Amino acid sequence: MTKPLIFLDPHPRNEMMVYDQATEDTLNQMGRVVAHFGSRAPDHLVDDILSEVEIIIGQTAMPKERLDRAPRLRGILNVKANWEPNIDYAEAHARGIHVLSAAPCMAPAVAEYCVGQAIMLARGLHTSDGLFRDGSEAYGIAGNETAYSLYGADVALLGYGNLGRALAPLLQPFGCRIMVHDPWLSDSYLRNEGLEPVSLEHLLTRPKFIFLLAGVTSENEGFLNRSKLETIRPDSSVILASRAEIVSFPDFVELAGEGRFRAAVDVFPQEPVAPDDPVRMTPKVLYSAHLAGGIRPSYARIREAMLDDVGQILKGLPPLRMQRAEPSLAGKMRSR
Amino acid sequence: MTKPLIFLDPHPRNEMMVYDQATEDTLNQMGRVVAHFGSRAPDHLVDDILSEVEIIIGQTAMPKERLDRAPRLRGILNVKANWEPNIDYAEAHARGIHVLSAAPCMAPAVAEYCVGQAIMLARGLHTSDGLFRDGSEAYGIAGNETAYSLYGADVALLGYGNLGRALAPLLQPFGCRIMVHDPWLSDSYLRNEGLEPVSLEHLLTRPKFIFLLAGVTSENEGFLNRSKLETIRPDSSVILASRAEIVSFPDFVELAGEGRFRAAVDVFPQEPVAPDDPVRMTPKVLYSAHLAGGIRPSYARIREAMLDDVGQILKGLPPLRMQRAEPSLAGKMRSR
Amino acid sequence: MTKPLIFLDPHPRNEMMVYDQATEDTLNQMGRVVAHFGSRAPDHLVDDILSEVEIIIGQTAMPKERLDRAPRLRGILNVKANWEPNIDYAEAHARGIHVLSAAPCMAPAVAEYCVGQAIMLARGLHTSDGLFRDGSEAYGIAGNETAYSLYGADVALLGYGNLGRALAPLLQPFGCRIMVHDPWLSDSYLRNEGLEPVSLEHLLTRPKFIFLLAGVTSENEGFLNRSKLETIRPDSSVILASRAEIVSFPDFVELAGEGRFRAAVDVFPQEPVAPDDPVRMTPKVLYSAHLAGGIRPSYARIREAMLDDVGQILKGLPPLRMQRAEPSLAGKMRSR
Amino acid sequence: MTKPLIFLDPHPRNEMMVYDQATEDTLNQMGRVVAHFGSRAPDHLVDDILSEVEIIIGQTAMPKERLDRAPRLRGILNVKANWEPNIDYAEAHARGIHVLSAAPCMAPAVAEYCVGQAIMLARGLHTSDGLFRDGSEAYGIAGNETAYSLYGADVALLGYGNLGRALAPLLQPFGCRIMVHDPWLSDSYLRNEGLEPVSLEHLLTRPKFIFLLAGVTSENEGFLNRSKLETIRPDSSVILASRAEIVSFPDFVELAGEGRFRAAVDVFPQEPVAPDDPVRMTPKVLYSAHLAGGIRPSYARIREAMLDDVGQILKGLPPLRMQRAEPSLAGKMRSR
Repeated sequence: MTKPLIFLDPHPRNEMMVYDQATEDTLNQMGRVVAHFGSRAPDHLVDDILSEVEIIIGQTAMPKERLDRAPRLRGILNVKANWEPNIDYAEAHARGIHVLSAAPCMAPAVAEYCVGQAIMLARGLHTSDGLFRDGSEAYGIAGNETAYSLYGADVALLGYGNLGRALAPLLQPFGCRIMVHDPWLSDSYLRNEGLEPVSLEHLLTRPKFIFLLAGVTSENEGFLNRSKLETIRPDSSVILASRAEIVSFPDFVELAGEGRFRAAVDVFPQEPVAPDDPVRMTPKVLYSAHLAGGIRPSYARIREAMLDDVGQILKGLPPLRMQRAEPSLAGKMRSR
Repeated sequence: MTKPLIFLDPHPRNEMMVYDQATEDTLNQMGRVVAHFGSRAPDHLVDDILSEVEIIIGQTAMPKERLDRAPRLRGILNVKANWEPNIDYAEAHARGIHVLSAAPCMAPAVAEYCVGQAIMLARGLHTSDGLFRDGSEAYGIAGNETAYSLYGADVALLGYGNLGRALAPLLQPFGCRIMVHDPWLSDSYLRNEGLEPVSLEHLLTRPKFIFLLAGVTSENEGFLNRSKLETIRPDSSVILASRAEIVSFPDFVELAGEGRFRAAVDVFPQEPVAPDDPVRMTPKVLYSAHLAGGIRPSYARIREAMLDDVGQILKGLPPLRMQRAEPSLAGKMRSR
Repeated sequence: MTKPLIFLDPHPRNEMMVYDQATEDTLNQMGRVVAHFGSRAPDHLVDDILSEVEIIIGQTAMPKERLDRAPRLRGILNVKANWEPNIDYAEAHARGIHVLSAAPCMAPAVAEYCVGQAIMLARGLHTSDGLFRDGSEAYGIAGNETAYSLYGADVALLGYGNLGRALAPLLQPFGCRIMVHDPWLSDSYLRNEGLEPVSLEHLLTRPKFIFLLAGVTSENEGFLNRSKLETIRPDSSVILASRAEIVSFPDFVELAGEGRFRAAVDVFPQEPVAPDDPVRMTPKVLYSAHLAGGIRPSYARIREAMLDDVGQILKGLPPLRMQRAEPSLAGKMRSR
Repeated sequence: MTKPLIFLDPHPRNEMMVYDQATEDTLNQMGRVVAHFGSRAPDHLVDDILSEVEIIIGQTAMPKERLDRAPRLRGILNVKANWEPNIDYAEAHARGIHVLSAAPCMAPAVAEYCVGQAIMLARGLHTSDGLFRDGSEAYGIAGNETAYSLYGADVALLGYGNLGRALAPLLQPFGCRIMVHDPWLSDSYLRNEGLEPVSLEHLLTRPKFIFLLAGVTSENEGFLNRSKLETIRPDSSVILASRAEIVSFPDFVELAGEGRFRAAVDVFPQEPVAPDDPVRMTPKVLYSAHLAGGIRPSYARIREAMLDDVGQILKGLPPLRMQRAEPSLAGKMRSR
């Protein structure tokens, strides 16, 4: 029996991220591997494999006409964390092709980062070192006048997808009351998860911690505009963790710079940020350069989950680890 | 029936910390309150209350000759987090006087701070903002070359008292393997708590995260000397959270400044640190000015626990919330 | 706009189970409801609704030719806990119709029952009352010679689906080591869930508690035959909770009756069991009459989950609460 | 240096329970052991060891005059689960002697038993087997008309000591709302434990599950009299787990026999119960012969905890595993 054809086209993921030696060995045991790195696979290479390919690992464009030419295709494993618009999700679903993303594998690292950022903002850990080095530190309670804590805090999650599900357990031992606004989830589902469904208005005005975890869709781009941002409870700690496009970014940074709320920003509308972008000068914001998710252990998780689910699919079993595309939703997502 | 005499002598705690209006009202319901703030109560004031006092809240020196003159005394509630050497612990115990400290009330805030510090050091959150503002940031995995994570990490606690017991649950959802070295606790006790007892050597050389949480005793001052510190696993994140005196401080800071390990330092041998202390210039260390414990919610916890335990003691019941002095150990502790 | 047509055909579920007043009211708000109770809906009624129906709640047979006539159908919510062979799962999937079952709603009640049965068998609670009433009781350790405990026990789950996922959290505070054998799940998936994947041989021979939780498929009927059952660790507690057909039932009961292992049996090959079935006389087995899942709170969960998911589907959103059919697996299940 | 003298006088505990070979070996490493089994040690033997004994393991009577003759005594480790009135607790405390009991070691087994009993009563598992054997079983919901569940239930604990602390975590995954009435504990302490402090009236009239876990003191004997028992919410499941003396036993059994509430009874005013005691004939009650705590793993826990704490005490460190006598409370306890 011929081994199944597995096609790797993971750019911008590189070999170190998704194809280390152990991964290569395992994939070679499971199938015949054709791999292309460094760019999206050229058309002729895709044309070559379509008639036989059973598994695609990567972000190869798969519109209907390509799916039509791939009769043996059983799984498309997107090793990025978001849904690209280059797949015909409905058609793939109709053909019983599993379309998966690696979002759950990046979520733990992002959740950890979010906890770090939240504690820094609330407890003043982003400024304590500078104050000490300047000799302008104050000790104990005198230095803690504006400090607050996650313990027992009201916390809001805007969006309860992979990131929210990874973050909630980290907040649990702090005894937080966790509110969620997610228009894709029903109130009783959230309550069964031990979360409190709230309106967007409530989410902005009540809690002391707000984690912005929603993806960008064709419907929500920039929906957190200036007037909404101005309703945020003063002095709250706001962590922008998923996609910069969900907020009106200049307003968000400006309000944070004015001290209207505390903010941590890891994602930007354009990356890299231009050298002379004034955003770099805005005071008070805690910046980082899209560092929350992309650490080595996240790629190890991707490799493990990917191998697991390739194995399941080739056995005719449902995938277990990566996230399945919801045809009704994946098409709405806006990727870069 | 005369109401019991309650004596408040909480300096350096002030009224805002331990005697807000609600606390004052509750104590006045339970007894006749004599309070002194701003300094340790003068001798004549102590002399006045000894014969009748039933509860002392504060750090009044209580050597045997004063205990001898306080026949009705039932509880001494130290509202600081450590044991001072100014009490005859054995004599108080023999008289059935409950001697308590507020250490458990400060521990959650310290544990939260420790988690923040650990994530900062491991994930580079103490430097990301500066790099971004300098325009020298790298994005994603390129900026994460030296990043590591708490998830699944080997973590060590030096000392498993109030701080360790508050910290362990915060680490639990990260799936850490938690090692403890504490010469006052038996191995099987630690194993029953789900912790791994390890030698000091093992604690320094193996884990990627080390939390220094031990108190200072007459026996352990400076015991983490340069040669021991040099065995720490390279690039580990070391959080000095309890008392600076357990390490050879100049060596600790020097090694951290050389990048031998990553370090967060919240406590110092002398506080405030002298303006020209060279420690302020040491690079790489993440400093803060003894800010980990002393936030408002910690004082709210102290007030609540103190009222609870005064109530219990006055009813002839055991205290529940504050920590009880172990006569065999309290006398060994070194306070400032 | 016309309200969507919702068709109820839930037999053998009756109105009390799935259509109480509150449910009726909510469904009527969401759509036009056509309901049939007391038998499977007759063909002419189904024929009447097919062209317009958007949601089917119940077990209506839906082969391809009916799906072809139901162009607006978006969801089939089977309110039983298993997959019937009367749906063309692949075709429904290809059409983007959500096919759901209520299995997750019954699982908590079954898991609770399993815990009760396991403690009874291990601790002798199924015999203690009779011994006491006979006057042949022994007190304390003398009466506990054969007792054992869930604390720290090796526990095995045969099958880790809805029942396993409901049972595992109930075992967690006992500190059990939980082994799983489930050929549909990968080892690394199970390890990530904190479970230990084991072979069937290991599952039978090692642990002291075995929970039989697998569904019946065309492949596994009767696979726990006499020779396999004879390898069970002597004196283990074996709980038969899902489907009697996975074991060779006469052998299972006979071996349990001989004291080869302890057994609780809630499910039978034929229900009701014949009045003169010799199984009724077999000593030692702890019997119950398929009582584990079907309690009132289970039906309340079904009603809530069903309303939730009807709401999601009608909004074009993914269902959240009920279980989705895996086309590759649902077709293998054997229902009665 | 002479090894410390350790005296064993554990009757009614026997060698199998507290002095297996491994325990004997460890104790012999730590000290010189003098042991007496089969009865309380005779006076002359006690007289012989008093002047040198450092550790007593057992229930030796230790009034003041004996304590006066035991100047080196540092610990009394009662290997039963209750406080006997034969020790001068205040005097022992004043001398700095650790007085401990094994109650925490028996609690897990009792808690497990309680969960089993509660599920049996609520789900009908105490009658299902008999009904099936009689051929009078009903299947599924028809057989579950009076069944209810622990999931989401209101549960009450009368007394929150060792048993309550062991039981609460087992109830946690069922999502129970746990109410506690315990006059020795403050409301805010209970709230901090995640429990709801309630009055005795509330405890009897509201919840569906009542666990009677209180010890007997000179103050509470028989305090749950007929008029109080008659206020119990009809059809509740009441588990009598600690001491029969806290209820008016004949009334309790009579009311349960009449079906006023469901009841499980493991403890009796006199044990063994007389052969002709009419209590044996009372219908409906689920009886067991004081089997909840005394299983082998409980004794293993006692041995481990005892060795741990002997080791701590001999090192001058506080004990960690066994329960410390509260002088103000231990004297109130009524043992048999």
